[in-house]
Amino acid sequence: MIIFQRRNGEFQGVGERLQKTIIVETINSMKKIGIVGATGYTGVELLRILATHPHVEISFVTSRSNVGLRVDAMFPNLRGFIDLCFSDPNSDELADCDLVFFATPNGVAMKQTAELLKSGTKVIDLAADFRIKDIDVWSQWYGMTHACPDLVEEAVYGLPEINRDLIKNARLVANPGCYPTAVTLGLLPLIRSGNIYLDDIIADTKSGISGAGRQANIGTLLSEAGESFKAYAVDGHRHQPEIAQILSLACGERVDLNFTPHLLPIIRGIHATLYVKELNEANTIQNLQTLYEDFYVNEPFVDVLPEGSHPETRSVKSSNMCRISPHRPSTGSRIVVLSVIDNLVKGAAGQAVQNMNLMLGFNEITALMQPALLP
Amino acid sequence: MIIFQRRNGEFQGVGERLQKTIIVETINSMKKIGIVGATGYTGVELLRILATHPHVEISFVTSRSNVGLRVDAMFPNLRGFIDLCFSDPNSDELADCDLVFFATPNGVAMKQTAELLKSGTKVIDLAADFRIKDIDVWSQWYGMTHACPDLVEEAVYGLPEINRDLIKNARLVANPGCYPTAVTLGLLPLIRSGNIYLDDIIADTKSGISGAGRQANIGTLLSEAGESFKAYAVDGHRHQPEIAQILSLACGERVDLNFTPHLLPIIRGIHATLYVKELNEANTIQNLQTLYEDFYVNEPFVDVLPEGSHPETRSVKSSNMCRISPHRPSTGSRIVVLSVIDNLVKGAAGQAVQNMNLMLGFNEITALMQPALLP
Amino acid sequence: MIIFQRRNGEFQGVGERLQKTIIVETINSMKKIGIVGATGYTGVELLRILATHPHVEISFVTSRSNVGLRVDAMFPNLRGFIDLCFSDPNSDELADCDLVFFATPNGVAMKQTAELLKSGTKVIDLAADFRIKDIDVWSQWYGMTHACPDLVEEAVYGLPEINRDLIKNARLVANPGCYPTAVTLGLLPLIRSGNIYLDDIIADTKSGISGAGRQANIGTLLSEAGESFKAYAVDGHRHQPEIAQILSLACGERVDLNFTPHLLPIIRGIHATLYVKELNEANTIQNLQTLYEDFYVNEPFVDVLPEGSHPETRSVKSSNMCRISPHRPSTGSRIVVLSVIDNLVKGAAGQAVQNMNLMLGFNEITALMQPALLP
Amino acid sequence: MIIFQRRNGEFQGVGERLQKTIIVETINSMKKIGIVGATGYTGVELLRILATHPHVEISFVTSRSNVGLRVDAMFPNLRGFIDLCFSDPNSDELADCDLVFFATPNGVAMKQTAELLKSGTKVIDLAADFRIKDIDVWSQWYGMTHACPDLVEEAVYGLPEINRDLIKNARLVANPGCYPTAVTLGLLPLIRSGNIYLDDIIADTKSGISGAGRQANIGTLLSEAGESFKAYAVDGHRHQPEIAQILSLACGERVDLNFTPHLLPIIRGIHATLYVKELNEANTIQNLQTLYEDFYVNEPFVDVLPEGSHPETRSVKSSNMCRISPHRPSTGSRIVVLSVIDNLVKGAAGQAVQNMNLMLGFNEITALMQPALLP
Repeated sequence: MIIFQRRNGEFQGVGERLQKTIIVETINSMKKIGIVGATGYTGVELLRILATHPHVEISFVTSRSNVGLRVDAMFPNLRGFIDLCFSDPNSDELADCDLVFFATPNGVAMKQTAELLKSGTKVIDLAADFRIKDIDVWSQWYGMTHACPDLVEEAVYGLPEINRDLIKNARLVANPGCYPTAVTLGLLPLIRSGNIYLDDIIADTKSGISGAGRQANIGTLLSEAGESFKAYAVDGHRHQPEIAQILSLACGERVDLNFTPHLLPIIRGIHATLYVKELNEANTIQNLQTLYEDFYVNEPFVDVLPEGSHPETRSVKSSNMCRISPHRPSTGSRIVVLSVIDNLVKGAAGQAVQNMNLMLGFNEITALMQPALLP
Repeated sequence: MIIFQRRNGEFQGVGERLQKTIIVETINSMKKIGIVGATGYTGVELLRILATHPHVEISFVTSRSNVGLRVDAMFPNLRGFIDLCFSDPNSDELADCDLVFFATPNGVAMKQTAELLKSGTKVIDLAADFRIKDIDVWSQWYGMTHACPDLVEEAVYGLPEINRDLIKNARLVANPGCYPTAVTLGLLPLIRSGNIYLDDIIADTKSGISGAGRQANIGTLLSEAGESFKAYAVDGHRHQPEIAQILSLACGERVDLNFTPHLLPIIRGIHATLYVKELNEANTIQNLQTLYEDFYVNEPFVDVLPEGSHPETRSVKSSNMCRISPHRPSTGSRIVVLSVIDNLVKGAAGQAVQNMNLMLGFNEITALMQPALLP
Repeated sequence: MIIFQRRNGEFQGVGERLQKTIIVETINSMKKIGIVGATGYTGVELLRILATHPHVEISFVTSRSNVGLRVDAMFPNLRGFIDLCFSDPNSDELADCDLVFFATPNGVAMKQTAELLKSGTKVIDLAADFRIKDIDVWSQWYGMTHACPDLVEEAVYGLPEINRDLIKNARLVANPGCYPTAVTLGLLPLIRSGNIYLDDIIADTKSGISGAGRQANIGTLLSEAGESFKAYAVDGHRHQPEIAQILSLACGERVDLNFTPHLLPIIRGIHATLYVKELNEANTIQNLQTLYEDFYVNEPFVDVLPEGSHPETRSVKSSNMCRISPHRPSTGSRIVVLSVIDNLVKGAAGQAVQNMNLMLGFNEITALMQPALLP
Repeated sequence: MIIFQRRNGEFQGVGERLQKTIIVETINSMKKIGIVGATGYTGVELLRILATHPHVEISFVTSRSNVGLRVDAMFPNLRGFIDLCFSDPNSDELADCDLVFFATPNGVAMKQTAELLKSGTKVIDLAADFRIKDIDVWSQWYGMTHACPDLVEEAVYGLPEINRDLIKNARLVANPGCYPTAVTLGLLPLIRSGNIYLDDIIADTKSGISGAGRQANIGTLLSEAGESFKAYAVDGHRHQPEIAQILSLACGERVDLNFTPHLLPIIRGIHATLYVKELNEANTIQNLQTLYEDFYVNEPFVDVLPEGSHPETRSVKSSNMCRISPHRPSTGSRIVVLSVIDNLVKGAAGQAVQNMNLMLGFNEITALMQPALLP
């Protein structure tokens, strides 16, 4: 391979060979970005997206157990794009970054965030530390005492379709969960319409297996999870209170729902099938399709498909788009809404970059406007 | 390979080579079986199961477009088990069979059944020709005029868990659809309990792609359907009226449901996630688990898993078992029932053999009692 | 579910419910079988196959880390078939068995075998402890000192197509590796023909991921190994010396080969593509197809496909069959032989049961004669 | 969604809604591109890549059987990126394009190319019409009489690593086949070294199923090709003469090889495992790794991995990169080279865009420099 310099978002061939790697010489005006815990799937996905972002420089990538290892030795798709080794997450250099992403397990970000904010570094947590406003509910579901309840109060829930202006001014953003993103975007127009039963919503959701993370685990082996399908955590799942909270905030009333997650034998993709009951005939939504199209007319990453469509998860693979199609079937008593995202992009790293773009004053869609990979 | 003779269900090596194939010399007392349309997945699955059935001889396998071709040239897994070529479906020899399976597209069986019954041959139709009692509803969903409405009346719906005694005495059995089998077995104990809302049931179902059949079709190519997931026919699907009919018959009242099928990127397996609302607290089902265990205590092919289980489709792959687990989640207002089958076995060919066993007076479980293939 | 009694290989419904499980009342004349290390894939596959074997009773299933757990709680496909809990592998009861299978990691069987043999229990090791006759070579590849070199000498290599008579009289059988089975059966007719270069053989082999076992491991996660393909251990793999040994023994001369294993994103199946060079035109094999057909004419589990075939791994899924097709392409200088097996059946548990049948005096094909699962 | 204008390769939100689609207002100086036959996988992949190319405008997309249908109705991943309907391939407008890609079946491009070249339109054929210089060989393998043998002579074989300068000045480029690209790049350093036997090369190749195209076909259904693996066309495949031709041209001597393609149950990816014999010890290649690294030091899309690596197909998924690792195993007599590409990118559409960049005077890597999608 030859060496590249990246200038203003375009790669330029240089024609010299230097230590068999590509040097990406970044421009001084670029913002410095750190990623804590970059060995998981949300971490490598952040790296993939940010590698072509014209206005940021990845200056710090941490992994407690891989200090000194080249990032592209673990993730060969990044060869030529990321010329870094993993650093120790406790390094002071992290505070030199303009913004730090935590792509860590739950309970890590809450221990480092206060100090980073103090030094002027903005923070986006891709885990759940700052998502649930009720600390007791959080502790109950995540099995920990929270290290900084005050920051939970300050944190902005990073769903731009709801909180765009708050995100622009936030120091600390709680990046939403993957299921909550797909479910909330699918339900929002109906929730806001005021015409549905708020205590009788059903979210039957299906996730690709990358949502389970990159940990050694028998249950997510190809031999165990391949060629099979199952529900899990039917009796209760952490994303249920997160969804209930955001929907309740969105409409000002208590929302209760059945939330049933399932495991798909695919790598990427979430499909939410949402069942909602209209209040009564008088109030019945006149035109479901128009309700959705009008609601999302100005959103760059929510695409209401033509009437009668069935969104496929592959139509958003590798993309930050959420595609939605509302239906009123000929039998049964329910409106059915179909909503798909790539759990690693709009459900995690892509949405985090969207939030970063807002927080750092970039165009919101920078580095995120690519067609999905199909087939 | 060497040649085998099958005697009383055991294969015996003979040690002679004859025309490079295995001869299965059947015993005279065996029942003669015909299969019309054996080139689809339900057809080859019938052949796979019947190949080791000790009391039947497959004497006739038809395929209009493959007359003369060896069956095992198309399906190499049957080499050494089925020593037949495909015949023409209009042959008179079909009437010499004791029982004929139709593994044909919808609309074929209804044209040949009357004549076969007249000559004393019993018939099991794996397609939908005899499933729906209301001829108008049938015509509407299947887009044809029915050729023999009187036989629809006579036909027994072949779900042994409901109609075992009727099946034993039937000349003509309508083998249930794959979705209806998984959904009905999952709902039956609650439907019969009298304690649920019958007009507000939701069946969110997911099927492996073999359910779409073995036709050349872009939508079911590996490149199109692999690594993806989608709903289909959300506005209305043929299996909805079939499910509504069987559930209504089972409880004597009108049942209405939302039925949402999805396409799984696996070959075999159906997973039904069923949402049911209890009538009111006074009538609330006391012990959901016991209700299910007691209901199915005598059924050989319905397995109620231990409380809190999440059945995987792979736990029934290649098997005639339906595994079920009812749940009452900590949030939401619904009972959730999980039900899995192999769509080609309990959802098609296996259930057809179960019906054949009943119709021909064999032990109901003959040739069907094998552990599922896991992993 | 109802309760079953198994008598002479047929299940009989009893109609009583007892502790919600199926009791398989075995007949006294049955042989007692133990399985050490039954929580891996070869273990559960042994259980699946033996569950319907008419002449053996599984009386002992061990797992050091799961003592007391019901076997069917871990493997729900066995519900109704195996009514046992995992026991401690060091129990004396193991010696009461007529035959014990070791489905353990390498290095376990060699520590327990001597004592079992002393008490009259026969042993089949599905791991590699007794496969390599040269103890130094074994130690080099497996990184251990061997615990019982004398037993290595006694052990019979359990490939019935080569050692059938020795296996019948053996106390201790080394069950072959999965790759060695597929490669050896594919090459044997040519190796024995005396007409090929023995030092220039290439075995390009591809294995389903269940061959990597049921251990928590990042590399075999669905998210890592799915939708991908790679070679591994190209510079040297443990199965190379095993293959070289068995082929050298088969022809009495030194055989050397390039052995390149690859990882397939499927659960079951091995495909070996074998490249062999004929000695010279004078000696060239006259009829490749006939050479193979004649060689395997009496073998129940080797199927030479019609000339010009391309065996699919799915044509042997769940079956003990090896399907082979030799080719002489129109370009290049090589004969190409294609050979497929199910790595867990003919490549492990099925072949082990075939060996058990021989060692205990049963019909060699008992419990192994089922069509492959297709699709 | 909101509307975008693309200016100089960056998307800009406008905030107006216009006919529910995104308008990509292209800039006048952009080159006009036509794609004939854009409903196949190479076609949609061209659209995906070109959608973000800053210097070209897709002005014409044809499909004989879909005239008038919106392109993004067939390929929803392109919603917001391609605002076109399919046109008739015989339209005169095609000649207004600066360059036309043929993503058609074999035999189509040869009928339209002469006229397009006459009107000054450059042509890249992604099919095989112009790949084989020997017309007789071509006719034999493709079963047609060639429509324009003179243009075959003129056509440049579009492998930039060999023909970069010729491509820059070409009017007509024959885009290489997918297998030939992976095999040729893997073998080139050794072929050029002069130290190997040129008549005893083995290419054992494995392709993802998108290589079989987007035609309705039973053999490539998920139910047929999923969870399985097989070789095909072992006795002879069209890509064999193409590979032999390009390798022979590369070294000036006749090259003969065994070429064995296999079908992988994945969507994208080719893996070539190449076996080469060194001439003799005196000439033996001193340092295999250095030979490869030096050979490809200036190539932007060939990446020689660190010594001892095993490239995974997923490491190049969606990317134009070819990753290679040469090995000299501890047993056997062969050098083994591993080479992976994405068959739809470097094996088809990506390489076609690379050629287009060269032909139109753009930076060769424009629109092609993205990390692969992993996981």
